[in-house]
Amino acid sequence: MYSLGIQKLLDSAEISIGGRILVKAKGKVYEGLLMPRPDIGDSNCIVLKLDNGYNIGIRIDRGSAIEKSGHKEPKTVKEEEEFELGKIKKSLLKVSFDPEKPPIAMISTGGTVASRVDYQTGGVSAMMDPKEFLHNVPELFNIVNIKNFSKPFTKMSEDMDSSDWIALAKLVAKELNSDNKGVIITHGTDTLHYTAAALSFMLPNLLKPVIIMGSQKSSDRPSSDAVMNLICSSHAAVSDIAEVAVCMHGNMNDDYCLLMRGTKVRKMHTVRRDAFRPINDLPLAKVWPSGKLEIVNKSYRKRSDQKIKADAVFEEKVAIVKAYPGSEPSILEYLQAKGYRGFVVEGLGLGHVPTDSRKSWIEIIKKLVKDGIPVVVTSQTIYGRINPNTYTNLRRLYHYARAIPGEDMLTEVAYVKLGHVLAKTKDMDEIRRLMLTNMAGEITPRTVPDAFLY
Amino acid sequence: MYSLGIQKLLDSAEISIGGRILVKAKGKVYEGLLMPRPDIGDSNCIVLKLDNGYNIGIRIDRGSAIEKSGHKEPKTVKEEEEFELGKIKKSLLKVSFDPEKPPIAMISTGGTVASRVDYQTGGVSAMMDPKEFLHNVPELFNIVNIKNFSKPFTKMSEDMDSSDWIALAKLVAKELNSDNKGVIITHGTDTLHYTAAALSFMLPNLLKPVIIMGSQKSSDRPSSDAVMNLICSSHAAVSDIAEVAVCMHGNMNDDYCLLMRGTKVRKMHTVRRDAFRPINDLPLAKVWPSGKLEIVNKSYRKRSDQKIKADAVFEEKVAIVKAYPGSEPSILEYLQAKGYRGFVVEGLGLGHVPTDSRKSWIEIIKKLVKDGIPVVVTSQTIYGRINPNTYTNLRRLYHYARAIPGEDMLTEVAYVKLGHVLAKTKDMDEIRRLMLTNMAGEITPRTVPDAFLY
Repeated sequence: MYSLGIQKLLDSAEISIGGRILVKAKGKVYEGLLMPRPDIGDSNCIVLKLDNGYNIGIRIDRGSAIEKSGHKEPKTVKEEEEFELGKIKKSLLKVSFDPEKPPIAMISTGGTVASRVDYQTGGVSAMMDPKEFLHNVPELFNIVNIKNFSKPFTKMSEDMDSSDWIALAKLVAKELNSDNKGVIITHGTDTLHYTAAALSFMLPNLLKPVIIMGSQKSSDRPSSDAVMNLICSSHAAVSDIAEVAVCMHGNMNDDYCLLMRGTKVRKMHTVRRDAFRPINDLPLAKVWPSGKLEIVNKSYRKRSDQKIKADAVFEEKVAIVKAYPGSEPSILEYLQAKGYRGFVVEGLGLGHVPTDSRKSWIEIIKKLVKDGIPVVVTSQTIYGRINPNTYTNLRRLYHYARAIPGEDMLTEVAYVKLGHVLAKTKDMDEIRRLMLTNMAGEITPRTVPDAFLY
Repeated sequence: MYSLGIQKLLDSAEISIGGRILVKAKGKVYEGLLMPRPDIGDSNCIVLKLDNGYNIGIRIDRGSAIEKSGHKEPKTVKEEEEFELGKIKKSLLKVSFDPEKPPIAMISTGGTVASRVDYQTGGVSAMMDPKEFLHNVPELFNIVNIKNFSKPFTKMSEDMDSSDWIALAKLVAKELNSDNKGVIITHGTDTLHYTAAALSFMLPNLLKPVIIMGSQKSSDRPSSDAVMNLICSSHAAVSDIAEVAVCMHGNMNDDYCLLMRGTKVRKMHTVRRDAFRPINDLPLAKVWPSGKLEIVNKSYRKRSDQKIKADAVFEEKVAIVKAYPGSEPSILEYLQAKGYRGFVVEGLGLGHVPTDSRKSWIEIIKKLVKDGIPVVVTSQTIYGRINPNTYTNLRRLYHYARAIPGEDMLTEVAYVKLGHVLAKTKDMDEIRRLMLTNMAGEITPRTVPDAFLY
């Protein structure tokens, strides 16, 4: 709710949420749509959605005035649709589809980028209508023609799992095997990089861009990063880079986004808009909202026009187990008894596990491998590469117990890859070979300079 | 082994490993002790330990000459001791103890900093004698007087657990309650930050520096970082900063070390010498080998001369369990049945867990809390802070199921803290209060600017 003072001003001018208004404050005049007040922040600020898609907060004081705008909506409007905003039905969606622009498909899966404040709980909930947030970004329609807009499901990303990855991979392949130039997937940020990795493996020999984006602030709030991320994603989706890539803010300014390979990216901060960082690799490119695209990593896959076939398989019975001082390796035995068929052990440093004889990771892993259950070891350091040879204890783990060193793969990526590989083969030698083979950019043959803390 | 060519030169000059020699190569003359060849690298390079403590590799070609040095050892030698280097007994340890220098205690626990190449396995093993690596750093004795040198155990750090933390905390308290100005602990790097966190909680109201250091390359190898880390640690140990702090390379150059608070530091790379980074906080200081110390974070605890009492308790039955797409929350029930008394769930983003009804993290956590078992949630993003309010699903986890939000604590730190707290109280309200209270710098009240990817 707005403050009583603001509410009085609104009531006297007969303005309700969603209405087009003029706000005069501090000698300036702002025009836009009145948004609901976010649950945090100054209740004496009015939140206005400007025609450029940005939300701003304007502090209202004695000298300020609020009135209904005499203007109609912007001229570009070609389609209009009713939808729910909060509890109020409003005709806010005014988007134009230009058939001259390159066609793309957009797939909405939910998450913050498609969220709004939920006035029942005070928290943020997923929006029911994926088109709702599109209204925030009218610029999008100057770049691409969103020919197909689909919503296979609407989930916050913490609730996505491998069945969603499979559904997405199939849907993306269908969209790519048409005249679309590329696909944009909007996604909650928390597991966005898990999905990016899954699609990287499930869409082999990709020949068009598949851009996954999200936002760290819901798009009905001031200073949401959704707008710029969507604009940059649309440039990336029609670019020459035929990879599954994540497109998010490159820094805390709204100047450019980073395009990052789907198997070499990770959410590294809970709230910052530049939370997604490339890991053990350079970003593929920097993308500016203007359309400028600067290649950083020349080893990207180029666009071509052939068809793609999704390899959308996943063995669900795979788990990540963390190894640390005092950790309990019998979790592996418990999960084996529950039918688990493969493990990623998130180990220490170069790929260590505790070797204490009371809690013997190495003996348990040896037995699992003997039982045909692969154990891949990654490092909780995030950056760097497993080295199965340097230390005596490492030689025991990798040569005696026959764990598979995870090279420079992220734990998340090794997990997704192992689930994918296990759905394709049960042969231990083949599993080992595939896990040690670079399939989708997930293993860099040599350490990439300047990639640490990029 | 050195190459046949080099070995012939050595044999003809009657030089064996550990001998003091002159090497003439490329118009320069180098003097130092002949080291064993590392298991990797050019077999035509001779590895020489210079009198300044650094190891260098010198390529030997046709124009080179190797001969015994006519010089005796450096003049500062006051004590001599025989010890094993590889299989060869050599009198290499020539260290001087200067009673005029400020007294400190040094505690060696093993790890790479006290490692050497094991010619049996080809890997690296811990050295048996902690004094061995001291020979690498004669400069140390110009800074401090190592009054007490102890070795409570010799372990690679992957094998350390809470019983070692307890032993260390008691030993450190004893050393601090003497005329020592501070303590240096040498430690393997893989779990160094777990130990740093444990000592931070077990040594409350610390009034002297406790500096923990390690090295990423074993100290008998060329370009080891052990030397500079030890020198900077000795400066830090006699400084004004009365904290448990990690002292390791600040960047890839050998110019300065970062001194980082023990609860706000993490190993972030498998091999880089600058792998240890401050997380969600600035480093306490930069320390140069020259002794220059630049305070970066002014909120450090100052030195004073009072006694300290170790609070060296830990409940072993605490575990970290990772939450991710498809993860299995029944691991919590399995561990509860095994007698576990507390959990840190390494969650997603702002502190999410999957809410899928088939695998209901939230219901299981609610039941655990009802059973008196605290569940603290941290974020696998590493950087940032848990927010228990933003999203509807978060409100369910923290308000309905009553999980404890881990604030901006690292997973490792929350784990160590929970084990420490559980050893002190079984009262759930008190556990919650303590976990949400900043005890040792582990919770920063406000987000620290410029700390991301420092």
